[in-house]
Amino acid sequence: MTNSPYFSQNFSQITNEQTHQDSYFMRLAIQLAKKGQFTTRPNPCVGCVIVKDNNIIGEGYHYQAGRPHAEVFALRQAKQAVGDDLTGATAYVTLEPCSHHGRTPPCADALINANISRVVIAVTDPNPKVAGGGIEKLTNAGIAVTTGVCHDEAYALNQGFFKTMSGGLPYVRLKIASSLDGRIAMQSGESKWITGATAREDVQRLRAISGAIITGSQTVLADSPSLNVRSPQLASLSNIPQPLLVVLDRRKRLNVTDDLIKSWVKNQAENRPFYLCQDDVSLTEILRQLRDDYHIHDVMVEAGATLSTAFLQQNLVDELIIYQAPCLLGSSAIPMFTADFAKMCEQLRFNLQSHETIGDDIKFVFRQ
Amino acid sequence: MTNSPYFSQNFSQITNEQTHQDSYFMRLAIQLAKKGQFTTRPNPCVGCVIVKDNNIIGEGYHYQAGRPHAEVFALRQAKQAVGDDLTGATAYVTLEPCSHHGRTPPCADALINANISRVVIAVTDPNPKVAGGGIEKLTNAGIAVTTGVCHDEAYALNQGFFKTMSGGLPYVRLKIASSLDGRIAMQSGESKWITGATAREDVQRLRAISGAIITGSQTVLADSPSLNVRSPQLASLSNIPQPLLVVLDRRKRLNVTDDLIKSWVKNQAENRPFYLCQDDVSLTEILRQLRDDYHIHDVMVEAGATLSTAFLQQNLVDELIIYQAPCLLGSSAIPMFTADFAKMCEQLRFNLQSHETIGDDIKFVFRQ
Repeated sequence: MTNSPYFSQNFSQITNEQTHQDSYFMRLAIQLAKKGQFTTRPNPCVGCVIVKDNNIIGEGYHYQAGRPHAEVFALRQAKQAVGDDLTGATAYVTLEPCSHHGRTPPCADALINANISRVVIAVTDPNPKVAGGGIEKLTNAGIAVTTGVCHDEAYALNQGFFKTMSGGLPYVRLKIASSLDGRIAMQSGESKWITGATAREDVQRLRAISGAIITGSQTVLADSPSLNVRSPQLASLSNIPQPLLVVLDRRKRLNVTDDLIKSWVKNQAENRPFYLCQDDVSLTEILRQLRDDYHIHDVMVEAGATLSTAFLQQNLVDELIIYQAPCLLGSSAIPMFTADFAKMCEQLRFNLQSHETIGDDIKFVFRQ
Repeated sequence: MTNSPYFSQNFSQITNEQTHQDSYFMRLAIQLAKKGQFTTRPNPCVGCVIVKDNNIIGEGYHYQAGRPHAEVFALRQAKQAVGDDLTGATAYVTLEPCSHHGRTPPCADALINANISRVVIAVTDPNPKVAGGGIEKLTNAGIAVTTGVCHDEAYALNQGFFKTMSGGLPYVRLKIASSLDGRIAMQSGESKWITGATAREDVQRLRAISGAIITGSQTVLADSPSLNVRSPQLASLSNIPQPLLVVLDRRKRLNVTDDLIKSWVKNQAENRPFYLCQDDVSLTEILRQLRDDYHIHDVMVEAGATLSTAFLQQNLVDELIIYQAPCLLGSSAIPMFTADFAKMCEQLRFNLQSHETIGDDIKFVFRQ
């Protein structure tokens, strides 16, 4: 606070304008980053916009691990537009530029070498190999650095990555398709389809952003499901890698002579990343394995009631995603949740994050 | 279509302006009508706005059966403002003015006697005693009449009234408070409270617009519920009459010596309109009785799973209203819907009309 109203007002105007502009360009960078959301894993998706005199002179995003980072593409474009010296330009990056030599040279160095004057960063990198190193390099080189612009939107782009990089287990999305009375199949096992085509297309997107899909042997025995990304709409976007399919068969129920199941397992193992887990390990241990051995940040659980209930009761779910169809399936249909509580205070409770209609159905996202 | 673009454009401008103005004033009339929504039954709620030279000179709404209609209050105010001759003025009424002598003189006559020049009506009256008679009187007197302005909003104000007046059964709202897994109570019967205070306050509003609340003997035996309007917020608005409480006890399970139940029945019968139905009649017959013998247009069903399921399966529900709490209560808790279907195609299916968060819960309105 200052006693001079004039100074205060003037100062606040400048700040507001700058903040507004920063948010605007960062949102464009976030939109660019999203173009890589199905393909960059195990890398995070990142977008970059370079601006000079209020004109966008370069845009880039990370598309695939091993290929250049967002900053590299944006710098290339900017140099083509205005020449090699980018003095006076600002770079907007959704994630702190890397400072280490990985499969590509450090982006912080590339920004410095191009004489960029200012770098605006949405989220600092939790990767222990970067961890503030990028910002330090930039400031040491005399570049002005602003962080935290559109932080939450940019964070949401790479939730799994941020969670595992800061020591957490993979980010778990548990999906259930149910009726209004909480049923996921008829007693006969019939479950095609409770929800409509639009909801199922949305599930394709969730699969496509996941490094692994976990299901149980029960579901395999009942449905021989595909659990793959097969949407023509998504396929047209880019060459999306299939997520690792993890089948939990800790009681070895799939060790059968049944030809159908044998051929299902063979088919999966030959055509996509596949992991049949028959060890007697905990769910936590499996998630840890997926993180440490498979570099997986985002896991989707698509399983029957028993395995879903186990994940929920063990508090391992980050997002509970329910697609609810506007129908009643009756009391002999299979319930979504098999835990048995005597008192209401034992209930599992969630926080509603969002709800929207999706076709004829409703999509909820809850956090535990 | 005309070949003269000038004429066409000019004509369309005038029409648009008039339409826009009509909608604007009719919406005000609808807002006024809502002030009577808890107190007018068995009459419909009606609002009226009188406008001259773009100024509102009179406003009125119907408050209670036996008291003057909306038009009377609005005319009084208008005459006080500009004198007895209302030539040049337009009256906006949410429902066709009555043409018959009931407990009050016909409003069509009052509008004619005041020399009103134009009457804009949202919905024509389905009441056989009115049935176009109001409009006929007005046009015969040389008054310009426009109908159908904001029809749907005005229709929604009195859905039950319109349904019964056109020969239908009362409009049935069936309310369920459930968990995400479709449970309405623990196995022990514990059900207080699945949903939060905000959702329960909303239920108070639904009760207050209902002429009758139907429940079953099972619910009485389990909960001895109040099922009354008791919200201090509503009480402060006006003197809201308690809805008729209908207890369906067709198997005479309440003919017990249990003192608690006896005193509950006595208490209800002494303190509010109460109807203990112990005849072996169908649900349709009961709804017909409520319409014909009690002049009830709007019924709310607040019952246990068995009675709710019967209403739903017999296709007697106009609005299924679900308050869903963001929790899981487990597989031994009591399910909301007790019908038993073998195949998915037997499901009961609804159309989602609206969804909104209400406190921590979600409120859905479905139509069957």
